Amino acid sequence: MSLPYLTPSIRIRKTPFSSRVNAAGVKAYTVYNHMLLPSFFTTPEEDYRHLKSAVQVWDVSVERQVEIVGPDALRLVQMTTPRDVSRMQDDQCYYVPMVDTSGRMMNDPVAIRLHQNRFWLSLADSDMLLYCKGLAAAADLDVEVFEPDVSPLAIQGPKADELVARVFGDDIVSTRFFRHKTINFQGQDMIIARSGWSHQGGFELYLDGSQYGEALWDTLFAAGEDLDVRAGCPNLIERIEAGLLSFGSDITPAHTPFEAGLGKYCDLDTVNGFLGYAALSKLSTPARQIRALEVDGPPVPAIYDSWPLQDSEGNVVGQISSSTWSPDYDTNVTIAMVDRSHWDAGTVLMAKVPDADRNATVRAGFWG
Amino acid sequence: MSLPYLTPSIRIRKTPFSSRVNAAGVKAYTVYNHMLLPSFFTTPEEDYRHLKSAVQVWDVSVERQVEIVGPDALRLVQMTTPRDVSRMQDDQCYYVPMVDTSGRMMNDPVAIRLHQNRFWLSLADSDMLLYCKGLAAAADLDVEVFEPDVSPLAIQGPKADELVARVFGDDIVSTRFFRHKTINFQGQDMIIARSGWSHQGGFELYLDGSQYGEALWDTLFAAGEDLDVRAGCPNLIERIEAGLLSFGSDITPAHTPFEAGLGKYCDLDTVNGFLGYAALSKLSTPARQIRALEVDGPPVPAIYDSWPLQDSEGNVVGQISSSTWSPDYDTNVTIAMVDRSHWDAGTVLMAKVPDADRNATVRAGFWG
Repeated sequence: MSLPYLTPSIRIRKTPFSSRVNAAGVKAYTVYNHMLLPSFFTTPEEDYRHLKSAVQVWDVSVERQVEIVGPDALRLVQMTTPRDVSRMQDDQCYYVPMVDTSGRMMNDPVAIRLHQNRFWLSLADSDMLLYCKGLAAAADLDVEVFEPDVSPLAIQGPKADELVARVFGDDIVSTRFFRHKTINFQGQDMIIARSGWSHQGGFELYLDGSQYGEALWDTLFAAGEDLDVRAGCPNLIERIEAGLLSFGSDITPAHTPFEAGLGKYCDLDTVNGFLGYAALSKLSTPARQIRALEVDGPPVPAIYDSWPLQDSEGNVVGQISSSTWSPDYDTNVTIAMVDRSHWDAGTVLMAKVPDADRNATVRAGFWG
Repeated sequence: MSLPYLTPSIRIRKTPFSSRVNAAGVKAYTVYNHMLLPSFFTTPEEDYRHLKSAVQVWDVSVERQVEIVGPDALRLVQMTTPRDVSRMQDDQCYYVPMVDTSGRMMNDPVAIRLHQNRFWLSLADSDMLLYCKGLAAAADLDVEVFEPDVSPLAIQGPKADELVARVFGDDIVSTRFFRHKTINFQGQDMIIARSGWSHQGGFELYLDGSQYGEALWDTLFAAGEDLDVRAGCPNLIERIEAGLLSFGSDITPAHTPFEAGLGKYCDLDTVNGFLGYAALSKLSTPARQIRALEVDGPPVPAIYDSWPLQDSEGNVVGQISSSTWSPDYDTNVTIAMVDRSHWDAGTVLMAKVPDADRNATVRAGFWG
């Protein structure tokens, strides 16, 4: 694999865990929310095997938080999303498509309600902080909107529960999916949620105070040595198998949440105060939508540009945005945006992979 | 120089010129506004020598545009900045600090007035599109706000005028600083401005339509062969000499425009409708400010984290954000944020450079 070099600068921020990520032998990075995100430590395949069998600690500080606090906090959050957040509990996390007034996606964060008038948005790769600031300023809302010094650390894999139990106790392991509890580390309270960008189970711990980062990392590694705990990161193979969509790749600002397959998070019957309501209501029957596909043949090359999908007459009927070889499923697991006319499961299309044309079959769902 | 690898993905966008940038032998990239920006082609020093003696073509597509069009366009732009834009001409460009309701920097784009009700913001590295969308949505403004398919190509260096004259005519060369004219390329009108992120002179051509990108690049290179035209990019050495501040490095969201040395762009006496007015009015006497410094000793190492500046008693009185060796000025040209108590020209401070403590002398101004 031949990769380009990345020139470091202060503008591309390090994280509270960067010294430990470097010591763990990170092989390459990507840049996400103006910050470094590791992309693999051994090979993507070996990282994947280990993620599925043991436990990994991921520096996902790039999931920057937008903190919204004050009497109008709920109102502001609701302005950004078609998901009805009015009945969210104080210990709850919601996956929320964030949608503009034209009905298009701006981000797909996890919203965390910390208490009645205090939320965090745990962001995908766009500066939603600025949208929220714009709303607060122009609508003169009674809220503060800022980026706190909070950096998520994910603990993922089948042995994540065991590691978390050892360090934080059995009560934390009882946390239900997309709920959060509070742990105390060296005197500092921090939120931990049962969530994470894999389907292997685990937690996201919201490091609250950069100064605790290295000690927290070291504590987890010391406690998990016999569990073969390793440094990891979101894994391309596993996340495609799991159908975890990447904002900026699979979902872009050109797409509606219905095209992104996120219709179940659009509560257009009950939501009140969402600014994109009028536009999105007219877009609820998409002409294209996210699909899982299997692409035939040997492992596909790395994808730098979307690959067109054609029908038997050569018409372009979709675009592949993510694709890689899956050792477990023995095929190229693939995510594409496919036209309604060709999105039924079993439809065979032609994928214009750079090395060759290949058959691609639409599936009924994802793998993992 | 040992650089980390960058894992490419669709999320980190290519540009209309990427094939040509690759063919020209780009050595490393940075990521800026979710897009690839070359960082050098030969060595930073050799790129610098060539920029100062010939002409370079820069793929600065990362300067993404926010288009604001409609009856409320001027009102929206004015909401974002303390610079009074009310008398801007239809052929004019303004450097505008963009400031939030707490008086802090969000971006420092060049605003371009295309006609009375149509503006572009040519962005530094943050998604100001989302702030503008937030304002338009919450204030229910009569505007459209979107990212057009526009990608700037800079033509910089002492021979830039000659190259532009050959390709676009003498009338374009008569364009005054920070004014724009219109050229026609293959039937498509495009804006060209006398501007650019160097002090070597030249233009920025706003490619209007990605499909023209490679032809435009090739046209410039064919016309400039005997001028030794080469692919280039913003150069670290030259831009520090010139005092061109990098948003995200030298200026961050923690800083006010007065701290950033941009007080002359804050028209607090005449501006009307800027949303940060109340907060910024109280911050016009900064306690720290951007300064140029010379750092003694041999060439400094690459800077990944800010370097503290200390007084003679070891108190931290500033932070270095950019520093590199300048062959022309035979010193380490440096940008720092320095406390008022120590910002007078001639003050000697101690720079905590990773390899050694070094003397650093505050200057009255930049070099280039």
